[in-house]
Amino acid sequence: MAALTLDLARQVLAAQPFAQLVGTEITRFGGGSATLVVPVRPELSQQFGYVHGGVLSYLADNALTFAAGTVLGPNVLTGGFTVTYLRPGAGTRLRAVATVTGSTRRQAVVNCEIYAETGDSAAEPVLCAVAQGSARLVERALDDAGAQ
Amino acid sequence: MAALTLDLARQVLAAQPFAQLVGTEITRFGGGSATLVVPVRPELSQQFGYVHGGVLSYLADNALTFAAGTVLGPNVLTGGFTVTYLRPGAGTRLRAVATVTGSTRRQAVVNCEIYAETGDSAAEPVLCAVAQGSARLVERALDDAGAQ
Amino acid sequence: MAALTLDLARQVLAAQPFAQLVGTEITRFGGGSATLVVPVRPELSQQFGYVHGGVLSYLADNALTFAAGTVLGPNVLTGGFTVTYLRPGAGTRLRAVATVTGSTRRQAVVNCEIYAETGDSAAEPVLCAVAQGSARLVERALDDAGAQ
Amino acid sequence: MAALTLDLARQVLAAQPFAQLVGTEITRFGGGSATLVVPVRPELSQQFGYVHGGVLSYLADNALTFAAGTVLGPNVLTGGFTVTYLRPGAGTRLRAVATVTGSTRRQAVVNCEIYAETGDSAAEPVLCAVAQGSARLVERALDDAGAQ
Repeated sequence: MAALTLDLARQVLAAQPFAQLVGTEITRFGGGSATLVVPVRPELSQQFGYVHGGVLSYLADNALTFAAGTVLGPNVLTGGFTVTYLRPGAGTRLRAVATVTGSTRRQAVVNCEIYAETGDSAAEPVLCAVAQGSARLVERALDDAGAQ
Repeated sequence: MAALTLDLARQVLAAQPFAQLVGTEITRFGGGSATLVVPVRPELSQQFGYVHGGVLSYLADNALTFAAGTVLGPNVLTGGFTVTYLRPGAGTRLRAVATVTGSTRRQAVVNCEIYAETGDSAAEPVLCAVAQGSARLVERALDDAGAQ
Repeated sequence: MAALTLDLARQVLAAQPFAQLVGTEITRFGGGSATLVVPVRPELSQQFGYVHGGVLSYLADNALTFAAGTVLGPNVLTGGFTVTYLRPGAGTRLRAVATVTGSTRRQAVVNCEIYAETGDSAAEPVLCAVAQGSARLVERALDDAGAQ
Repeated sequence: MAALTLDLARQVLAAQPFAQLVGTEITRFGGGSATLVVPVRPELSQQFGYVHGGVLSYLADNALTFAAGTVLGPNVLTGGFTVTYLRPGAGTRLRAVATVTGSTRRQAVVNCEIYAETGDSAAEPVLCAVAQGSARLVERALDDAGAQ
């Protein structure tokens, strides 16, 4: 099958209504790594004004799956992941950097770091969450994935 | 502090803009357990029409935290969680049932099961995802949580 | 294939040299659940005299896999797991109770609770650790599992 | 308190009877990273002759905790971790490389990769397992850690 490119990855992301609802963009895709960016806005927050933890976990899921796709191709299914929250998400945007740590022909394990950034280019990004997950190659059509 | 009740839990959830963006409701809260419900709609899906995995992980995060709150009180901070996807999310609504498995005075470990349900009352709910996470009691104001 | 029974599970455990090195016994096996027991002895401890966290994690791994075997049969491969430590392990023996939470034809997700018990029958077991993992059916010989 | 050094880390490891039972050595310690090595021997295997998964998970636990100690000091308590198995453990020794990915004053998140190596210096190490865990600073004496 054709290798995925950043352009194709953008089309995949654009075809995910929930990613659009959140406002996710993909800025890097290839070579075992993918970077997703989410502009922070009030709709993404929890009751104290920080980004909702569920936005961070969604973002980890999405970034991990794209990174796995760079080594396994488009027919990947994320099996699950672990996320650890380090600091509240704040600032003007989130940046999730996911990188394949190890893979076999059929499985990839991916680490992901989620940073909060501000418009201030002198400020260091703040590491908010760290995740690790795995994805597997799907050997049949995805719409038959009802019983993995 | 006053114990949380379902009414208070509803107010907390209503104060989380991201939970509102997703459309989450809380239907049970107390005694070590919390149940959250999300009506399925097209905006929550991925490119194949199933519920986006990130919705399931968000929902696990949110349900786990509420369940922990039933034993630790309102000042809880979710440290992280693991989610495993079993089947694609489909149907008319998601139901996340989170239950505290063990706790100390300062920490609770919570299991969560996410089911997809249809309008057909004769149909069995379908288990889509299973999660496990932990939350800790926050001993200082939440808005000082920047360096946990 | 023949269903596994407690007797067969005992033979499998007896054929695992590392389980023997630790001193693990299996006391229940079937119906989606397995219970493993480890007598506590000084060789299993860390520098403060508690049971080493690595013993708890080993035990979770072993119990999870047996529980998955009760629903998937003997050809299971544990994909991984998460463990959360709640309290130090002490007492006279550890008891790991693993239960399948959900499964498809090819995958099982298992929860596991590890308790420390004392010889005092009036004392409550102490929950030391909680784990959740998943195992998959292996469709080829296990000794060809080099590239999952 | 005095910073930990490799010599001190060796003393800590030597004071862990279970680490001695497994045969673990520490070869690198400092700067956010720790490396532990386990010579493979028959006592560490499962029923098919591979290293028992529980050895890999023990090793992840131990390596993660040492790595966290390089940034948080000696009074660390591992809260838990996730391990994903990629390939069976074989060869002549295991090497666990744990590296702090992010930390606050009180918590560190650590990634760990476990490789199987052979005596053949020309052979590539084989990545067997990947783990991610977190550890917290303990603010009271460790032997009072009964209710975390």
